[in-house]
Amino acid sequence: MAIASVLEPQARDVTAAALQQTLIDLIDLGLVAKQAHWSVTGPRFRALHLQLDEVVEAARRHADTIAERTAAIGVAPDGRASTVAAGSRLTEAPAGWQNDRDVVAYFIDAYAKVIAGLRERINDVAYTDPVTQDLLIAVTADLEKQYWMFQAEQD
Amino acid sequence: MAIASVLEPQARDVTAAALQQTLIDLIDLGLVAKQAHWSVTGPRFRALHLQLDEVVEAARRHADTIAERTAAIGVAPDGRASTVAAGSRLTEAPAGWQNDRDVVAYFIDAYAKVIAGLRERINDVAYTDPVTQDLLIAVTADLEKQYWMFQAEQD
Amino acid sequence: MAIASVLEPQARDVTAAALQQTLIDLIDLGLVAKQAHWSVTGPRFRALHLQLDEVVEAARRHADTIAERTAAIGVAPDGRASTVAAGSRLTEAPAGWQNDRDVVAYFIDAYAKVIAGLRERINDVAYTDPVTQDLLIAVTADLEKQYWMFQAEQD
Amino acid sequence: MAIASVLEPQARDVTAAALQQTLIDLIDLGLVAKQAHWSVTGPRFRALHLQLDEVVEAARRHADTIAERTAAIGVAPDGRASTVAAGSRLTEAPAGWQNDRDVVAYFIDAYAKVIAGLRERINDVAYTDPVTQDLLIAVTADLEKQYWMFQAEQD
Amino acid sequence: MAIASVLEPQARDVTAAALQQTLIDLIDLGLVAKQAHWSVTGPRFRALHLQLDEVVEAARRHADTIAERTAAIGVAPDGRASTVAAGSRLTEAPAGWQNDRDVVAYFIDAYAKVIAGLRERINDVAYTDPVTQDLLIAVTADLEKQYWMFQAEQD
Amino acid sequence: MAIASVLEPQARDVTAAALQQTLIDLIDLGLVAKQAHWSVTGPRFRALHLQLDEVVEAARRHADTIAERTAAIGVAPDGRASTVAAGSRLTEAPAGWQNDRDVVAYFIDAYAKVIAGLRERINDVAYTDPVTQDLLIAVTADLEKQYWMFQAEQD
Amino acid sequence: MAIASVLEPQARDVTAAALQQTLIDLIDLGLVAKQAHWSVTGPRFRALHLQLDEVVEAARRHADTIAERTAAIGVAPDGRASTVAAGSRLTEAPAGWQNDRDVVAYFIDAYAKVIAGLRERINDVAYTDPVTQDLLIAVTADLEKQYWMFQAEQD
Amino acid sequence: MAIASVLEPQARDVTAAALQQTLIDLIDLGLVAKQAHWSVTGPRFRALHLQLDEVVEAARRHADTIAERTAAIGVAPDGRASTVAAGSRLTEAPAGWQNDRDVVAYFIDAYAKVIAGLRERINDVAYTDPVTQDLLIAVTADLEKQYWMFQAEQD
Amino acid sequence: MAIASVLEPQARDVTAAALQQTLIDLIDLGLVAKQAHWSVTGPRFRALHLQLDEVVEAARRHADTIAERTAAIGVAPDGRASTVAAGSRLTEAPAGWQNDRDVVAYFIDAYAKVIAGLRERINDVAYTDPVTQDLLIAVTADLEKQYWMFQAEQD
Amino acid sequence: MAIASVLEPQARDVTAAALQQTLIDLIDLGLVAKQAHWSVTGPRFRALHLQLDEVVEAARRHADTIAERTAAIGVAPDGRASTVAAGSRLTEAPAGWQNDRDVVAYFIDAYAKVIAGLRERINDVAYTDPVTQDLLIAVTADLEKQYWMFQAEQD
Amino acid sequence: MAIASVLEPQARDVTAAALQQTLIDLIDLGLVAKQAHWSVTGPRFRALHLQLDEVVEAARRHADTIAERTAAIGVAPDGRASTVAAGSRLTEAPAGWQNDRDVVAYFIDAYAKVIAGLRERINDVAYTDPVTQDLLIAVTADLEKQYWMFQAEQD
Amino acid sequence: MAIASVLEPQARDVTAAALQQTLIDLIDLGLVAKQAHWSVTGPRFRALHLQLDEVVEAARRHADTIAERTAAIGVAPDGRASTVAAGSRLTEAPAGWQNDRDVVAYFIDAYAKVIAGLRERINDVAYTDPVTQDLLIAVTADLEKQYWMFQAEQD
Repeated sequence: MAIASVLEPQARDVTAAALQQTLIDLIDLGLVAKQAHWSVTGPRFRALHLQLDEVVEAARRHADTIAERTAAIGVAPDGRASTVAAGSRLTEAPAGWQNDRDVVAYFIDAYAKVIAGLRERINDVAYTDPVTQDLLIAVTADLEKQYWMFQAEQD
Repeated sequence: MAIASVLEPQARDVTAAALQQTLIDLIDLGLVAKQAHWSVTGPRFRALHLQLDEVVEAARRHADTIAERTAAIGVAPDGRASTVAAGSRLTEAPAGWQNDRDVVAYFIDAYAKVIAGLRERINDVAYTDPVTQDLLIAVTADLEKQYWMFQAEQD
Repeated sequence: MAIASVLEPQARDVTAAALQQTLIDLIDLGLVAKQAHWSVTGPRFRALHLQLDEVVEAARRHADTIAERTAAIGVAPDGRASTVAAGSRLTEAPAGWQNDRDVVAYFIDAYAKVIAGLRERINDVAYTDPVTQDLLIAVTADLEKQYWMFQAEQD
Repeated sequence: MAIASVLEPQARDVTAAALQQTLIDLIDLGLVAKQAHWSVTGPRFRALHLQLDEVVEAARRHADTIAERTAAIGVAPDGRASTVAAGSRLTEAPAGWQNDRDVVAYFIDAYAKVIAGLRERINDVAYTDPVTQDLLIAVTADLEKQYWMFQAEQD
Repeated sequence: MAIASVLEPQARDVTAAALQQTLIDLIDLGLVAKQAHWSVTGPRFRALHLQLDEVVEAARRHADTIAERTAAIGVAPDGRASTVAAGSRLTEAPAGWQNDRDVVAYFIDAYAKVIAGLRERINDVAYTDPVTQDLLIAVTADLEKQYWMFQAEQD
Repeated sequence: MAIASVLEPQARDVTAAALQQTLIDLIDLGLVAKQAHWSVTGPRFRALHLQLDEVVEAARRHADTIAERTAAIGVAPDGRASTVAAGSRLTEAPAGWQNDRDVVAYFIDAYAKVIAGLRERINDVAYTDPVTQDLLIAVTADLEKQYWMFQAEQD
Repeated sequence: MAIASVLEPQARDVTAAALQQTLIDLIDLGLVAKQAHWSVTGPRFRALHLQLDEVVEAARRHADTIAERTAAIGVAPDGRASTVAAGSRLTEAPAGWQNDRDVVAYFIDAYAKVIAGLRERINDVAYTDPVTQDLLIAVTADLEKQYWMFQAEQD
Repeated sequence: MAIASVLEPQARDVTAAALQQTLIDLIDLGLVAKQAHWSVTGPRFRALHLQLDEVVEAARRHADTIAERTAAIGVAPDGRASTVAAGSRLTEAPAGWQNDRDVVAYFIDAYAKVIAGLRERINDVAYTDPVTQDLLIAVTADLEKQYWMFQAEQD
Repeated sequence: MAIASVLEPQARDVTAAALQQTLIDLIDLGLVAKQAHWSVTGPRFRALHLQLDEVVEAARRHADTIAERTAAIGVAPDGRASTVAAGSRLTEAPAGWQNDRDVVAYFIDAYAKVIAGLRERINDVAYTDPVTQDLLIAVTADLEKQYWMFQAEQD
Repeated sequence: MAIASVLEPQARDVTAAALQQTLIDLIDLGLVAKQAHWSVTGPRFRALHLQLDEVVEAARRHADTIAERTAAIGVAPDGRASTVAAGSRLTEAPAGWQNDRDVVAYFIDAYAKVIAGLRERINDVAYTDPVTQDLLIAVTADLEKQYWMFQAEQD
Repeated sequence: MAIASVLEPQARDVTAAALQQTLIDLIDLGLVAKQAHWSVTGPRFRALHLQLDEVVEAARRHADTIAERTAAIGVAPDGRASTVAAGSRLTEAPAGWQNDRDVVAYFIDAYAKVIAGLRERINDVAYTDPVTQDLLIAVTADLEKQYWMFQAEQD
Repeated sequence: MAIASVLEPQARDVTAAALQQTLIDLIDLGLVAKQAHWSVTGPRFRALHLQLDEVVEAARRHADTIAERTAAIGVAPDGRASTVAAGSRLTEAPAGWQNDRDVVAYFIDAYAKVIAGLRERINDVAYTDPVTQDLLIAVTADLEKQYWMFQAEQD
């Protein structure tokens, strides 16, 4: 069974590609944030432990919105572990306990990468689907706010 | 910095291994349930769409409990995408739209696999850590309830 | 007494027309969804009975937003029964008990029509009022999500 | 498929007619109250804007109760826009901005008409269905309370 | 110690009998609904599993109201298992797993029986106690709504 | 300014008289229950202190309903202190600290008197206003439940 | 049974007298506010109807605090209807429907009287009981705020 | 349709028997607690009336957990009235009004019986299913807490 | 320490200027709305007193969003009292008690000024930052709705 | 590191001493109330079990306020077990099960002692710190209310 | 229109002056706390970002209480930006990003200044208005608690 | 009056001893956590101040569970200040202000001691009472999680 697209085929494909990469980055952001939530150590443990759960919650919420938008334009999203492992723009998080300073540095890098991708895609979909563009802008606004916060808490 | 273990080294290693595999299976269960939440089709779409979000919520909650237990016995858990993709006991979910009947069948199989592993590990940790055993039993109780429900809704 | 418009007269008229037609379609969507909520029969009765109340709730909420936007640009909206009966883009819903399969088909058709109109109007107001455009995009995003769901639950 | 009636055919028809007219009047009351909620002007704008939303909420809630009662006695209710436009006992609301004093006067007239009809129907169903009679009495009690309030706030 | 009755002895006895039978039927309705909640199978498992818990909740709430009304007219109600098993108007539910279609059919029959009894008793107490009559009417209104829903979801 | 009555003059007068006496009794019930809430002593102090606040809350809620019904039939209710002091059917509560046993006895007597009046008035308004009758029945149902509870807790 | 006082006899008597008069004034304030809540008419009906219910709520809450303080210093408070009718400092409220302007004027007068009494008593108890003084100050603060609001809404 | 058991056949049968008897005892505990909730009299009426509703709530919640565990190991639970009447370990509750002292004595006896059975079954399932054992332990913990409370409130 | 900007320097400066002026206007709007909340008098006191608190709440919420967006693009916002006093686009509110009619007129003027500035800035940032543009559009939508309401409530 | 005091050294010392003794008494009140909550027996078990938890909750809340006030005037509070055991004004609670009548008597004595100390300290701090005095008055008001309640429930 | 004062003219003027300066300091405290909430950087960013929002919330809440008290004694408060900028006792906050250590130091200084002023005014109003004195004491208690916290978190 | 034990005398004594020591340790943990909550200083003040209140809340909740379990096996628990001061396994907390680093070190030591005791007692009660063992395991799981967190936040 196929879901009819509200977009023309070409617009649908460009838009779906933008959404699919965003989905993968957001799922991975949620996974690495949980990973750091569990493995961070150092005097700022508690502050980061709590902050990272907010990152997880936001990443999961945005991922759901993006995936359901993909479905809404008639394309099945792909959020499986192997797809995420293979396609995420994020640097793989290190294994083992992680120092709080390193955690902050890791996420500053991660946000920079995810945001750079999103800003490109906001342009990509500008002429293919204003609805998708609006969702990507909203996700970007939230991630850029979090990006500022991680930068602000650097030593 | 190291976290002191409340367990002797050998007990800690056996227990950590049991927790680590459980963590991976639960994270993957959450990912494939979201995947099916987005891609299921058919007359039972809505019932499964809602039920699968409850599966996601439970899998995420249990994963967090298990990972924090791993940390509590002095071992850093590993819940990264590549670790999940490589080590999960679940059969990889198919890409694309999925028929509701196939989704039910997929999850009956998935639960059978995850539960079988958990029942083994309940025995493995029986003499290494009663606290961990108690947590694994609680997770198993919940998953076996969900397993019954997916079986009960087969055609 | 007149409400001063934040828009120039011509921009106001184009924008008001886009909002007025959207208002009518959304009020009618709410009425036919309630109608189906009461008269649907068949094995999927309960799933649709509940889903249709969510459609009603969303349609009413969006209609209120759209009507208050019309007022905010200085034009009195018209949401009276005769205006809705005469001007709605939706096919009139059938009288009497309705089979669940037919209900799903009816709403797939209804969403297609309402969405097509909205996508035209997103273009119409692009140069007359970015604020109204933003609201129409948000309504469209929600309706296209619901449209996918009704498609996904077809037999 | 037919829904078996808990009433004898004749009692069912009399009762269903009473419910159907009540449904139409209540749906229209909800529509004109929203219309006035958006288009009222004058120093009492805010008080009426808020009060009218309570009228809308009550009218919608009662309409749902009445329509589901119709279904419960085995008859499909009809709440479509054209049915409402054609059959409502209310005077059609005027188009455009409405002065607050005129809004109060309009609703005093509207309540008088809806209540008069309800009081007749309370008698009509007294011997056909005590359950329906009880629901009509409860709706009347609420509308007569609102009728008093609109009267009390006249200049 | 005796509770003084607000009714004359004969009126009290007629009213108490009507309440006592209603109590038994409602307790049994709650028990068989829980039984089906646990043992239903088939594609509509989840919809019925959830719907039946609402039936349970309503049956328990109404039973409590009816039993406390019995006490309020000075008679001790009897809701013990053996009294319910011996006196309920419902057909005994079958043991073992139950097909979803059969569950729907069973409850259509159960509601028909309980409602028929209630409608008789609404007449019985019409001249003995208007307060009790009002409560029986309210219970009947709710059960007839549920009766419609089970009928509507037949294949 | 006068409020138009939904009732004929004679029916209005009979109904208003029934409501007015009910209002006075309920306001007084609320006042004596607060009085006892503050002045009760003895081993059952706490149980009665809490129970009496529920009596107060119910008496106030019913009084408001009854007074607003009086207004709704076009007559201004009178709930002033001197009117209550002069017209209440209740025996005046004693001054000073009150023994818990005496408090229970006082309220058994008070409920008997208020209920007796209500049951007369349910008959009085049977042919003048079914809406008011329904409200009086609902108030009576609640008071008779409380009456049972005070009787049941006698030594 | 007597409640031991935390105060010396003379201090107790002065304090109890201050509390008792405050109690009566607050109960009466609650009663006249409800009376006006039901009988006010005019264009400001709704604003006053809602505002007066806040007055009622506050008056009842303060009355409870004051009465329980009376008990806490070992004296049984007296809040019976006849005591209130005989001893209140407020001018008796007029019977029948009341114009909104007159309602505002009545409450400005009522607050002036109650506050004047409270300010005297704040001095009276300054040397007998600082705890009671603190409660009277808190009640005065709230009533003076309401007094300002009624003054501010005069024509 | 059969539900696959996570247990071997023999373990399943032993476990299911333990769960089935627990289910019956808990349903009966809920029924007799409601019975006493309605028919208790004496100075402790209110305390017991409220306490017994907590017993009902807990018994129902535990019964649901136990029945769903039975289903989860592949066996349909049986909670029908006749099964409960025939198989409960509790002494049948007496008919009619019950003195508060007798109610306390009855429940001390009832808890002793239900708990004795549960402690046997905790042993029975120790080697057949640790998951079920954990649930039975949790139910026992709660019932033993309630058992202490009824004992503590004896005269 | 500096916060890296997600924008190029020139785009950042244009965007930051638009955000900074918006911040100042919104903080001032919140301050003057509180000022009027405290000093308004006249028959519409209560309606405006409540409405103005909603204005305050919205102005504060939007100001926070705008200031955090400024930080997110790497520029420290300035919301100090002297900056607001010097740079706000609003006419200074008058000191002392303010008549309700004058308050309405003052806010109609204030909204007109703030909105005019926002509409210019929506254009200014169209090519520098779509994320900021989206936030300014959302703020404008809300303020234009409030602007309509103040206009609608003029005499 | 030292916390600067808002008080002059001598005022600080007098105030801190008053706060420190209050803290100890309140912590001990919380401990003995929990002790009685667990060990009370007799027909009033349930009433006291619940009431004592409210005592615990209030004692803990007040203790926290008092301790934080101590810190706020620049002195570290001392709430350690040995300090409480050595310095509390309360008679030590008896070990083992306690009869309900004895529990009531114990707390009447305990409140009398704690309140006597508080009333002295309200005077002590009158000229050293009005802020602390205000907090002690508020604590006293609450404890005197509880003192009345325990007295009122004596046999 | 003038608001009648509950105070004599001279007492009113002294009291109003104390309230007006308090109002200005609290509004400015709220503004500089928001300013720091947005511009703080350093490892303690998150802790201070959250803590400062609590400061803002408290400052706003106290400012509202103080301003409404000013109105209640018959004087219009002045909380406009220019009044705050000109009259605040606080040192102006620095522009630009602020180091976390500096933020803590700034607020220690700010609290010291605001509290010093409040303690003077508590004395000033001691003989002019005990109600206002009580409010100033409550505000001081809260600010001194926050002052301790900022001191306690210094390096 | 004695509470009948569900355990044999010897099992009861062993179990009661394990529970009693756990109770003392948990009460003391709650007291020292509150002590540190009030007296901690240093840059991590706020993080620890909040974290320690969670420790307090958990310690109190677990203490209540453990004490009520003691009662449920027929033994009165002892949680008096002198018992805690004399019998706690924790090192006494230091008096005066405490540096944040020292607070973390103190609690790491405290958790190590309490947990070591609990792990012994889990073994002690393994053959005397599985219900108690289950509760001790649950308490241990929670404390070990907190132990990890304090370790993780060391410098």
